[in-house]
Amino acid sequence: MSYEILTKAEIDTAIKQLDGWAVRTDSGQPALEKTYVFSGFNAAFGFVSRVALAAERANHHPEWQNVYNKVCIRWTTHASGGVTSLDLKLAQKSDAIAKDSGQT
Amino acid sequence: MSYEILTKAEIDTAIKQLDGWAVRTDSGQPALEKTYVFSGFNAAFGFVSRVALAAERANHHPEWQNVYNKVCIRWTTHASGGVTSLDLKLAQKSDAIAKDSGQT
Amino acid sequence: MSYEILTKAEIDTAIKQLDGWAVRTDSGQPALEKTYVFSGFNAAFGFVSRVALAAERANHHPEWQNVYNKVCIRWTTHASGGVTSLDLKLAQKSDAIAKDSGQT
Amino acid sequence: MSYEILTKAEIDTAIKQLDGWAVRTDSGQPALEKTYVFSGFNAAFGFVSRVALAAERANHHPEWQNVYNKVCIRWTTHASGGVTSLDLKLAQKSDAIAKDSGQT
Repeated sequence: MSYEILTKAEIDTAIKQLDGWAVRTDSGQPALEKTYVFSGFNAAFGFVSRVALAAERANHHPEWQNVYNKVCIRWTTHASGGVTSLDLKLAQKSDAIAKDSGQT
Repeated sequence: MSYEILTKAEIDTAIKQLDGWAVRTDSGQPALEKTYVFSGFNAAFGFVSRVALAAERANHHPEWQNVYNKVCIRWTTHASGGVTSLDLKLAQKSDAIAKDSGQT
Repeated sequence: MSYEILTKAEIDTAIKQLDGWAVRTDSGQPALEKTYVFSGFNAAFGFVSRVALAAERANHHPEWQNVYNKVCIRWTTHASGGVTSLDLKLAQKSDAIAKDSGQT
Repeated sequence: MSYEILTKAEIDTAIKQLDGWAVRTDSGQPALEKTYVFSGFNAAFGFVSRVALAAERANHHPEWQNVYNKVCIRWTTHASGGVTSLDLKLAQKSDAIAKDSGQT
């Protein structure tokens, strides 16, 4: 399944309806990025485990990093060269999981 | 580190202050048991991952089973032959994690 | 997607090509069961995490239990009332992951 | 527990006995860094889960990032301002887990 990349205007409209996501372009193609802060490593890793399952379910995987209680996630669609509706869907899913995972 | 087993009276008093834990003796030695229900497999597994980290931190591991959105946990101390203060501590920790993990 | 249950003869033929799987019927419907032993809790939980991802990918989840370095898995298809080709596929996948996860 | 930072010479000697680790200083203080490549996301995440358990056991957590089948780990001791014997120990532990986790 391929996904069409969203225009800059479409992305800007979409992330206004989300909380805390920004468009980053410094790794070569546009990506949605957000940093979550949790109560500690235990909660942060619970979030990571749940997003990993959601990613595997969707067969779409983030670029992410973790330092103790912080998790920074980027969603972008390499096959399409930018941000697609699938990235928006997984950004929303990430937010839903974070709310449920001891996000501070 | 070894832990003294609690008497039946001590366990009964302690689990009155917890929610939903019962003493089971059918696997040979007393154990604290509780079944948690989550919103789905994703949330159940986030809980499992976090309890695994807490167990590894304490070097004390549960007997547990999972079927989709349900996780049944037993805490007992094999080296002591029964329920100890360490089991109570991890039962409380399990409850704290569950509240933070989409428990229904 | 629904899956047809396999006949007893089909299951018997299939598990002869696998290693260590047995048909259990004590929880009401036939299920494939196997117990894996790992080098410790750390390796056992790595296996559990990987099977969880495979299960979520297939949207088909095991009944399983863990005690320290042992993981007992059952695959059965509730919607079909027995063992299906999907259970066989995930039994094979479990074996492949276990070989790659410090199985002793 | 605090750990003394190792001198540059001590680190250089130590990492010669490991495989593929380099000293990085671009995030402000010296850190040991290595990138592992796995057969896919499933194997990469099994490795991540196991290192998370080892980190929690040691109460010492990495800076790490994951993109699909790649995991880049950095070990440094913030409280000490550099690389300590604890970082070396966890670098070795990471290597041992990776060998056991479908590293390609």
